[in-house]
Amino acid sequence: MVRAGSANVTAGPTLAVVAREAGVSVPTASKVVNGREDVAPETRRRVTEALDRLGYIRRPRFDGGRAPRLVDLVVHSLETSGAGAVLHGAEEAADDAGLELVVSAALTRGRAERPERAWLDKLVLRGSSGALFHLAELSEPQYAWLKQHRIPFVMIDPVREPPAGVVSVGAANWRGGVTATEHLLSLGHRRVAVLAGPRHTLCADARIAGYRSALAAAGVPHRPEYVRHAGSGEGAAGRRMRELLDLPEPPTAVFVCSDRMALGVYEVLAERGLRVPDDMSVVGFDDLPEARWLAPALTTVRQPLSEMAATALRLLLRMMDGHRPEGTRTELSTRLVERASTAPPGDPARGTEAVARPGP
Amino acid sequence: MVRAGSANVTAGPTLAVVAREAGVSVPTASKVVNGREDVAPETRRRVTEALDRLGYIRRPRFDGGRAPRLVDLVVHSLETSGAGAVLHGAEEAADDAGLELVVSAALTRGRAERPERAWLDKLVLRGSSGALFHLAELSEPQYAWLKQHRIPFVMIDPVREPPAGVVSVGAANWRGGVTATEHLLSLGHRRVAVLAGPRHTLCADARIAGYRSALAAAGVPHRPEYVRHAGSGEGAAGRRMRELLDLPEPPTAVFVCSDRMALGVYEVLAERGLRVPDDMSVVGFDDLPEARWLAPALTTVRQPLSEMAATALRLLLRMMDGHRPEGTRTELSTRLVERASTAPPGDPARGTEAVARPGP
Repeated sequence: MVRAGSANVTAGPTLAVVAREAGVSVPTASKVVNGREDVAPETRRRVTEALDRLGYIRRPRFDGGRAPRLVDLVVHSLETSGAGAVLHGAEEAADDAGLELVVSAALTRGRAERPERAWLDKLVLRGSSGALFHLAELSEPQYAWLKQHRIPFVMIDPVREPPAGVVSVGAANWRGGVTATEHLLSLGHRRVAVLAGPRHTLCADARIAGYRSALAAAGVPHRPEYVRHAGSGEGAAGRRMRELLDLPEPPTAVFVCSDRMALGVYEVLAERGLRVPDDMSVVGFDDLPEARWLAPALTTVRQPLSEMAATALRLLLRMMDGHRPEGTRTELSTRLVERASTAPPGDPARGTEAVARPGP
Repeated sequence: MVRAGSANVTAGPTLAVVAREAGVSVPTASKVVNGREDVAPETRRRVTEALDRLGYIRRPRFDGGRAPRLVDLVVHSLETSGAGAVLHGAEEAADDAGLELVVSAALTRGRAERPERAWLDKLVLRGSSGALFHLAELSEPQYAWLKQHRIPFVMIDPVREPPAGVVSVGAANWRGGVTATEHLLSLGHRRVAVLAGPRHTLCADARIAGYRSALAAAGVPHRPEYVRHAGSGEGAAGRRMRELLDLPEPPTAVFVCSDRMALGVYEVLAERGLRVPDDMSVVGFDDLPEARWLAPALTTVRQPLSEMAATALRLLLRMMDGHRPEGTRTELSTRLVERASTAPPGDPARGTEAVARPGP
């Protein structure tokens, strides 16, 4: 694509011209352009007016005035919560690097046929200089295709372990599982269940492992009937929650491995007339914007999606410059966001039996 | 920007070569590429394998194989709910047209200095062929800048009326206000209040006008003390809601002009021990993904943000092709999404009764 014309359009004044127009020194004009604080308000106003009047264009950091480079961000769907956080982090990091972001959704209505190639074709056709994928996984042909066309790429939070050599950024899922479970144990719960996503996904396996580690460290026996897998939607989570409630000895607290699943859990608890947190403590995972809209607001493990996307962008940038990242998997830490959905276990007289705490 | 290299990369095989490789006719190969159903599974498999093996690239619809055109979408922030819907609609419409979307946020951390120009500069520098803005408004210099650089653009849901000649797409706010208020009146409410955003914004003024029209049509007298303006955040909405509850004759229902404000209203009602919808019916506006996470799930007026963005993209496309849209303002219709936050007014005697509410 030849855009000779745009070179003329962008041939704006230099900062020296702006400084002369405003009657200030070039370093002062530069301070204003770069948002430095140490400029008198009146000076800042004069320079800003001159910048506007002359149509000054800041040159991107990375080159001498050529058009910004484009990188691609491909997400599964732009409609899901979480896409916003990924976009936000990637856009900000791209802007910092003088890059711009082309955004595509892999899943679009009525394109069940070969969706896995449509967006890859576009990347290759345009000559993308690099791509971030926030997708559950890529297929073998997709990986091969990217390799063939030498498009550097980074996976953000893949659901399954990518092939060797593929660079990815995820959350510290195991540690997140430990954190959530330790929080419930610290409140005095001993009958703690976990509702996880599908088996053999990175997040479910690691989060359940973290849950088991925390139980073991506290000397609380593992009860297999307290571990349930569901699809990621709220309906399936609700069905698994009903199973937990129908156990002879139901849990007093549940660690739910996604906020969306927690919505389903809340619905089932309301349907059974059980109150959060009085009758059941609930901890989620993700910290979607929706988590604080639940009543009571959901205590959850925050997954730093924006930071994950920003980190992925920075790794990509280094790959585009010819470096190989040292590790292929980067994990960012999670943290507990305490809201109102957890409390010490309720009065045993209200219907469920108390379990004696293990001795010291 | 010259990308001679990418032309070679993209010189993939023609469909005829793929068809020969797969041992099928060109029309059959074409059917597979275009996702048609009338192909035998085995044939589809063979063609798909050949497509993958040969690295076939589908040419975008709009030209003979040049790189796709880029259009820009600039949103206020990628972190706000609603940005996802706008992105989704714009991306899908762009993909339909063989365009790709470069996404930027106007508001980014630590760039209080001149944020209003940074992203415009990028558009001009890259020679954007067109832009969509999902921003509250543009400033006079920004409009002038776009005009000067002949970048066609469309505003999505601007907060204030744009200058003459500027093309915009919004929601039918007046009709939405009528719909919400009629719904409450039809349930038997006569003491209906409205909590709107800041004065002199397109959405607040039109939605309040719709509210008043519905009251007038039903012969219900307008009570100025039932109309309150707040900022768009939930805190300010909560404060206005307290004022409404403290009136000598508080309303039994409230039309809240955004879902985010409704969150603040729910919080204040809970704090006062009032139940939704038994003690107070609430109708929101927007239908953010969060609306169904409220307990009870929020009845709200759906603003078709995705469709608005898609419409804006299609208008932009026509402008890029040299056409002028006939009207400069397009309004898409809203609809009521009935959930669980409205009911007939309760027993008037219950007004002072404090109701115990679960939760901390």
